[in-house]
Amino acid sequence: MALAAVHENSLTAFENLSSLVADSMRLVDGLIDDHLKTDIPLIEQIAKHIIYSGGKRLRPALVILASHIHGRVSAATIALAAAVEFIHTATLLHDDVIDESDLRRGMPSAHTVWGNTAAILVGDFLFAKAFELMVTTGDLRVLQILSKTSAIITAGEVRQLMESHSFDLSIESSLQIMGAKTSELFGAACQTGALVAGATDQDALDFYRYGYNLGLIFQITDDVLDYQVINISRGKVPGDDFREGKITLPVIYTYQTASSQERDFLNRTMVELNQTDEDLNHIRHLIEKHQGFEKSLSLATDIMQKTHLIINKQSTFKPLLKGLLVECLSRNK
Amino acid sequence: MALAAVHENSLTAFENLSSLVADSMRLVDGLIDDHLKTDIPLIEQIAKHIIYSGGKRLRPALVILASHIHGRVSAATIALAAAVEFIHTATLLHDDVIDESDLRRGMPSAHTVWGNTAAILVGDFLFAKAFELMVTTGDLRVLQILSKTSAIITAGEVRQLMESHSFDLSIESSLQIMGAKTSELFGAACQTGALVAGATDQDALDFYRYGYNLGLIFQITDDVLDYQVINISRGKVPGDDFREGKITLPVIYTYQTASSQERDFLNRTMVELNQTDEDLNHIRHLIEKHQGFEKSLSLATDIMQKTHLIINKQSTFKPLLKGLLVECLSRNK
Repeated sequence: MALAAVHENSLTAFENLSSLVADSMRLVDGLIDDHLKTDIPLIEQIAKHIIYSGGKRLRPALVILASHIHGRVSAATIALAAAVEFIHTATLLHDDVIDESDLRRGMPSAHTVWGNTAAILVGDFLFAKAFELMVTTGDLRVLQILSKTSAIITAGEVRQLMESHSFDLSIESSLQIMGAKTSELFGAACQTGALVAGATDQDALDFYRYGYNLGLIFQITDDVLDYQVINISRGKVPGDDFREGKITLPVIYTYQTASSQERDFLNRTMVELNQTDEDLNHIRHLIEKHQGFEKSLSLATDIMQKTHLIINKQSTFKPLLKGLLVECLSRNK
Repeated sequence: MALAAVHENSLTAFENLSSLVADSMRLVDGLIDDHLKTDIPLIEQIAKHIIYSGGKRLRPALVILASHIHGRVSAATIALAAAVEFIHTATLLHDDVIDESDLRRGMPSAHTVWGNTAAILVGDFLFAKAFELMVTTGDLRVLQILSKTSAIITAGEVRQLMESHSFDLSIESSLQIMGAKTSELFGAACQTGALVAGATDQDALDFYRYGYNLGLIFQITDDVLDYQVINISRGKVPGDDFREGKITLPVIYTYQTASSQERDFLNRTMVELNQTDEDLNHIRHLIEKHQGFEKSLSLATDIMQKTHLIINKQSTFKPLLKGLLVECLSRNK
């Protein structure tokens, strides 16, 4: 399957990736549509609503890129890309139910109840369909990697619920939870995309590490962005993590050097969830004061630099791969 | 792997099955324990609580029986039996959340909320682990069949939620929902257990039909038992279906020949869920009067007789396979 060439041009790395995978992505969309057809229209409606709701489709794009770099994009690549998108969508659906039903948020409102039921079941359906798609690759390694990844994602969600509502959470634990919940699927997308294109196990593992680290950088900048005023058109409402009491890197760093009075504020607002309208602005100032954003982004920069070592042996695609890391990190600018 | 012989004796077919699979089932239990170990004890606790809560373990027993009949019980059989039990447990966990959050049941009570979150995540974890286990069989056919089965189970649950709270539900639709929710996994357990032991596709498909029909008979008698006073030690509280307004075969048959006044009663209690203490006794009398139990069990008997045709070519195991069908049906006695 021929892919568009990567032009040395003024486009961003993400724009280059988009253009590189555009034709393949149309095939992925077709396969997704085929696999959502059942005699129950509700399933198709809900699944499509989530899948086509403006997500970045980064994970299937990484599968396609991985196959392209390590051989060629085949029917197995397309099936795998659709499967990875299904797994991602299933975890999004279940996370929504869980965030909703989290005790800290109080009682779910009545109008969300059918929504929850549908979200659980459509999530289960997508997960099952993901495995059906993977089977069509005929490659047991793919199934092994992605079933393990699915278990890790879920265990990460459990750990997040248990640990991420307290300032006892360490930087290391926070990175592990992020790793399980976000990075593993980025990594698995890269690794399996490479494997089905004929990469050696070692090359595929290197590409797993690239994807894993890209996922970490992506999530760290996401957690920073959540405290910054951003364009509403991106679909994210800033302050969600604060309102939900989700302890992320910027506030962990802040807590480490905060005064006793500042810690009381952090505990009241983020652990007891006793918040007033002014508190979001105040915590932004606190994070700035304690360099919580800088320290978070500095950690992401360290990860990026380690990742450069992994991709140094790439020749043609090194600029694109480096560009994706840099642009993931610079989203906060 | 040597299995105990089936003795011509005074034991019931279910007791014979138990004794036949006992050694293998201990290996299944060991494998289940291994796959529940994570660094998060909560997952292991919840999963074990459900798996070892006194279920009949009928599905893994059918996998083992299928391998035994069609060749031999191998490591693949044991992995598959554990995987099928994991899928079954995952669907139980998610069904519980869904029944709880069903609009008809009103608002979930606060103390169940953390329970719901855990149930969703442990269900997801078990589902992922089921696929990890299946990969170890090295048999893509197994993965293909069980991923398809998982999608069908979920679609059946959606259909049940949409259709089974109204007396518009036909006998045929009710059987289809039962088929998707219960019989498919019984069938897949039999089919895949046979395949990994070297059965031909046709023999495995015949055994799928045996399992599918056994599942139907199992579910029909379960739905009858739900209206009969049974031993509490079986763990089922009679009347659950009535209280939840779940329209099953005995009440569909009753509605078909009920008077206008009786239909008003059925709609008030089971559709509007406006129930008084005396209503459960009254509906039992109505079902008796309209032969709802007899007609349901007669349908199950028809299915049993068709299933005899499938197992007629079995020689050694025909008495056991017939016995399981008969005893499934006669549980209501």
